[in-house]
Amino acid sequence: MVTVAGKTERASKPERAGRTGRARETREAILDAAERLFAEHGVGEVSNRQICEAAGQGNNFAVGYHFGTKADLVRAIVRRYNAEMEQRRLRMLAELTDSSDLREWISCLVLPATGHLDALGVPSWRARFMAQANTEPALRQIVIEEAVATPSMRRNLDGMFRLLPGLPEEVRQERAGMSRMLTVYALAERERALHEGDPTTRTTWEDTAVGLIDALVGLWPAPVTIPR
Amino acid sequence: MVTVAGKTERASKPERAGRTGRARETREAILDAAERLFAEHGVGEVSNRQICEAAGQGNNFAVGYHFGTKADLVRAIVRRYNAEMEQRRLRMLAELTDSSDLREWISCLVLPATGHLDALGVPSWRARFMAQANTEPALRQIVIEEAVATPSMRRNLDGMFRLLPGLPEEVRQERAGMSRMLTVYALAERERALHEGDPTTRTTWEDTAVGLIDALVGLWPAPVTIPR
Repeated sequence: MVTVAGKTERASKPERAGRTGRARETREAILDAAERLFAEHGVGEVSNRQICEAAGQGNNFAVGYHFGTKADLVRAIVRRYNAEMEQRRLRMLAELTDSSDLREWISCLVLPATGHLDALGVPSWRARFMAQANTEPALRQIVIEEAVATPSMRRNLDGMFRLLPGLPEEVRQERAGMSRMLTVYALAERERALHEGDPTTRTTWEDTAVGLIDALVGLWPAPVTIPR
Repeated sequence: MVTVAGKTERASKPERAGRTGRARETREAILDAAERLFAEHGVGEVSNRQICEAAGQGNNFAVGYHFGTKADLVRAIVRRYNAEMEQRRLRMLAELTDSSDLREWISCLVLPATGHLDALGVPSWRARFMAQANTEPALRQIVIEEAVATPSMRRNLDGMFRLLPGLPEEVRQERAGMSRMLTVYALAERERALHEGDPTTRTTWEDTAVGLIDALVGLWPAPVTIPR
């Protein structure tokens, strides 16, 4: 095909739509396969070749072609997850505005994730993928960047920190890490138990959220000891 | 060599001592290598062959010969770790007796581990091994069995639960899981950061313990919501 004066020859409209649709399907298949393999083995232990095979892609370069580096692929999975939760959190926050009840703000941190996992059904790999991504510092940085970058999360944390004015910045960050860690691992553990038919501590995702929120309502405003 | 009437021919005494010493060295080398490899890659991702190679054992059956299954090997690493902490915790508990200060009992949960890691120096892999073992449910069960089986841990938890009489049994177990998870992952993260020369949130292991203890003093007695 000939390109004349910057004008690239294009496929006809229906053909383009077909290609775009196929590209989207390929991307989704890769995201699904990578999420599952990362969840099961850890991000560092899975190769692009394994992801391509699991996604039914004959071409081992499909991951690189569609996503770039492994970090980019992890970011894409995290974004897909955050996008699902964003609407849920924004709806919840709309009802809070200036609430002075710490529990309500903490609930907005937890319930979008449990609601989303509940909607996904069994099996899902999303919570276990998040747990694995949080294990590796470089990837955890991506998770944090992406999470804090969402408008809903910024509003959520601002609303919460207004009620914890005495918390030093370092302790705030430390507890944010603890809070994230507790949530991520509790959800991953429940997702795994549901998948493998093991008993679970709590009956439903909603009850799981209640247990987590209770604990975080104690953890966030806990007294701060200044080390000697 | 001939065995007569149940009487096995034995090596002479100094030779036996040499063999026992070598066997002990081999066992320690395997424990060290396994701890490091499990910490870096996850227990499920490491083969006996890799452990034997890293331990300088020509014979790939050395792991099986000295320890049995992989679960037995994990148990042996956990026991070595617990043994190191047991003396520290017993010494701390001896000073508490009937303390009615929840913080003191919670300190006994955390300080033996941070004190031990401090004494190990950099690099160590112990905290990261524990984090990896806690990720896999079957192995986590071993960790819990071994930890609860130590006399110091039983006394520690008994003393603590006396101060939390209203906590339902399920919530007690749930929070024990959260408390363990928070501690294990915070110590693993610090151990990794020290090893890789990354910045750490807290300056010393002792300060790290203070941050953890503060959070747990809030988490353990947090209000309990009965789900609808």
